[in-house]
Amino acid sequence: MNKDKKIELGITVKKDQDFSEWYTQVVQKAELADYSTVKGCMIIRANAYSIWEKIQEYLNKKIKKIGVKNAYFPLFIPESFFKKESEHAKGFTPEVAWIANTEEGERLAIRPTSETIMYDSYSRWIRSHRDLPLRINQWCNIVRWETKATRLFLRTREFLWQEGHCVYETKEECDKETLEYLKEYKNLCEELLALPVLIGKKSESEKFAGALYTLSVEGVMPDGKGLQMGTSHNLGQGFAKAFGIRFLGEDGKEHIPWQNSWGVSTRLIGALVMVHGDDKGMVIPPRAAENKAVIVPILTGDNEKVLKRAKEVFRELGKFNAILDDREGYTPGWKFNDWELKGIPLRIEIGPRDIEKKQIVLVRRDNYEKMSVKDKNLSEEVERTLDLIQENLFNRAKKLMDSKIASVKNKNEFKKAIENKMAVKAYWCGNSECEKIVKNEFSVKSLNMPLDQPKNIKENCFCCGKKANVICYFAKSY
Amino acid sequence: MNKDKKIELGITVKKDQDFSEWYTQVVQKAELADYSTVKGCMIIRANAYSIWEKIQEYLNKKIKKIGVKNAYFPLFIPESFFKKESEHAKGFTPEVAWIANTEEGERLAIRPTSETIMYDSYSRWIRSHRDLPLRINQWCNIVRWETKATRLFLRTREFLWQEGHCVYETKEECDKETLEYLKEYKNLCEELLALPVLIGKKSESEKFAGALYTLSVEGVMPDGKGLQMGTSHNLGQGFAKAFGIRFLGEDGKEHIPWQNSWGVSTRLIGALVMVHGDDKGMVIPPRAAENKAVIVPILTGDNEKVLKRAKEVFRELGKFNAILDDREGYTPGWKFNDWELKGIPLRIEIGPRDIEKKQIVLVRRDNYEKMSVKDKNLSEEVERTLDLIQENLFNRAKKLMDSKIASVKNKNEFKKAIENKMAVKAYWCGNSECEKIVKNEFSVKSLNMPLDQPKNIKENCFCCGKKANVICYFAKSY
Repeated sequence: MNKDKKIELGITVKKDQDFSEWYTQVVQKAELADYSTVKGCMIIRANAYSIWEKIQEYLNKKIKKIGVKNAYFPLFIPESFFKKESEHAKGFTPEVAWIANTEEGERLAIRPTSETIMYDSYSRWIRSHRDLPLRINQWCNIVRWETKATRLFLRTREFLWQEGHCVYETKEECDKETLEYLKEYKNLCEELLALPVLIGKKSESEKFAGALYTLSVEGVMPDGKGLQMGTSHNLGQGFAKAFGIRFLGEDGKEHIPWQNSWGVSTRLIGALVMVHGDDKGMVIPPRAAENKAVIVPILTGDNEKVLKRAKEVFRELGKFNAILDDREGYTPGWKFNDWELKGIPLRIEIGPRDIEKKQIVLVRRDNYEKMSVKDKNLSEEVERTLDLIQENLFNRAKKLMDSKIASVKNKNEFKKAIENKMAVKAYWCGNSECEKIVKNEFSVKSLNMPLDQPKNIKENCFCCGKKANVICYFAKSY
Repeated sequence: MNKDKKIELGITVKKDQDFSEWYTQVVQKAELADYSTVKGCMIIRANAYSIWEKIQEYLNKKIKKIGVKNAYFPLFIPESFFKKESEHAKGFTPEVAWIANTEEGERLAIRPTSETIMYDSYSRWIRSHRDLPLRINQWCNIVRWETKATRLFLRTREFLWQEGHCVYETKEECDKETLEYLKEYKNLCEELLALPVLIGKKSESEKFAGALYTLSVEGVMPDGKGLQMGTSHNLGQGFAKAFGIRFLGEDGKEHIPWQNSWGVSTRLIGALVMVHGDDKGMVIPPRAAENKAVIVPILTGDNEKVLKRAKEVFRELGKFNAILDDREGYTPGWKFNDWELKGIPLRIEIGPRDIEKKQIVLVRRDNYEKMSVKDKNLSEEVERTLDLIQENLFNRAKKLMDSKIASVKNKNEFKKAIENKMAVKAYWCGNSECEKIVKNEFSVKSLNMPLDQPKNIKENCFCCGKKANVICYFAKSY
């Protein structure tokens, strides 16, 4: 039974052979997400939801320190709100799901994003400069009626996210904090999720519908595709004008405020799978793991003694929220596979011989390294090893990402890199015509333009050959 | 300006004169919730959402200890799922909102509760007794297309809740845990929210659509109306049969499992307002308060010195997450009113004379009691006072609830009690005919029947005069 189960439960393709199939298998078999009977919708299972809770916990702490408060706005948005900001309406209308049975006459959309429903309230709440800055965030579900094929975590008709919506007196404040939230996203990705990101500005054609400009953190996945992992938009004054948000300044005059909005979604969990997962399944970075270790007692002789010791270790490692796998009817080997599949960062083995030697065995999920640790150093060693795993996952991912980005000088090199499943870093004139060309010819989009640009660019645009103005990343994208 | 502002912002009716108007004013003026442009929907503002976060934190800790894991299921439910359990379908169909633009043929409901969408997955996930018990909870938004008038937190078309859904091998386990979750709700209400509750079983006609039986915690509000504050349903095997959930038992045979579901919602915040609020506004019990104290520097002379000391106190009281109200342009009196309106449990005043005396002044929100506290005892005294406030709020609420419940012997007494805006405790035959009579004649429903019933009831039913079988609470209800 053991062997059969293993084959049935394990991942049956290699990550570097069939990345797409590998991804779907890991997500489903590690019980991270499942398809729903409803087309295009996903079930976020407990193993992934606990990662989402870690993301919430991390981000809430950071944004509350800045002064952001969480709230909750309605799921339904009147059609007329959508039309108030024309660029916004154009960008989102094709993806909106509508409610059928409203007696009120006007159609109601299910929120694809909440700018319009929130700013309607803001226009009533904001009166004076004393009410600013106003910083509100909500954690909620979002519906976009996608017609493309469903990819769990990456493209589904419903997903979870947070959306922050702030209002400021001046453009300077708004610019400053728009960048600040982006940097929190960078920290979230790097510190908690061990995911390296490219931080930069979106091109004009890729910015948020209705924004002045959009900043983003982007990842490059092992298949060379780009993944937008978080965005922070300076919305300018467009929405404020459309929704009649005004404030009385200290000068006694009426002014139009500046706004931003910023969000990350459950898509981050998809990135986590793609970047850290391996042929045996999911790998959760320790800081994002609800259960940082699993204790597997090796029951081959004096089971009572081993179980007793395993329970002691379980209690001693309380702060790591370890799992004690004392299930009967499964071999240790089967359990090893099961927890490797699910991505628990550290395995702790305890057998009769370990007890004699007053030690336990640690096995790292990231590199399968095995080490014996003396009982007296247990807690510190576990902590130290978890830190090493976190660090190694980030470094490995950084190296991987760097290796997937090709610096190219012309369209030919660009084409070759894309064919080799790479993302591309290139000098660009900044003209959207060149973007259109690579989109049409190679199905490639611009990701973002690094915030720190060189001062006197002498290079030419990879596409049109005219004078380049920026460095920009391009890739096929999720 | 000060005086005008006070009139504009404060509550303009007394709680015991116009309870309904008082409630709406407190909810809106304390910035707990607001109406949305979308009929029947509410905005949960930051001051209330932070209470919801405290509820989440409290309950997550308790249910995770039992073994419950959080997950997230789709918002959309295919119409055919609804029809699978006939009682359930009958109960919920009238309130369902539907999606207009699905190309898939079948109509999609927006979840009014998630039994059906979750159990469809359970039928695929559960194979063996080893998969049981399965305990999953989700925090999500819920839509019920109410046609009655909207009451913020109490009756809205969308609200937030948690719904736990567990599966067990035996009825005994299911009974036991159905009660256990109810007791967690009682603890949540009493310990965190300082709200006393009646814990009991719903009558046959008031139980959940599709359940074997429903347990509930109910509150009696200051206007004598009952408020259902949490329910835990033993669903029996009905849903398992309808959705084909089966498991292979240790005996090698196929069995049908037992299920329960249980939930509390943002309605709890409505109870909090009604029970603890007073003529000056909201009163948040300390344990449910994000900010447990507010520091108001009394700026009348040596402002620099006072502000310096206020900042020191602010830092010293870090663990209470105090607010330092150093806003300019507002008098201390205006600030006192503002924070009383918002319900911050404790006010800390610091003036020049307090600094001289090496003291600060504490003012309790629950009873306006004012006391001087020596600087050296600051943190302990704040902690002690917050505990006293929490305790006093519960005791006061308990006394109030008890005073709002009349023990009645017959229909005449029943009628009088209801006319006097009381809830009723009565011996009842248990027959739904008598329930119908009081519903028709007095618009009164049964709340619940206490779990500990006397053994040999000799009394007669308050309504039909036949032999009584149970003690039951009745009231008009929200």
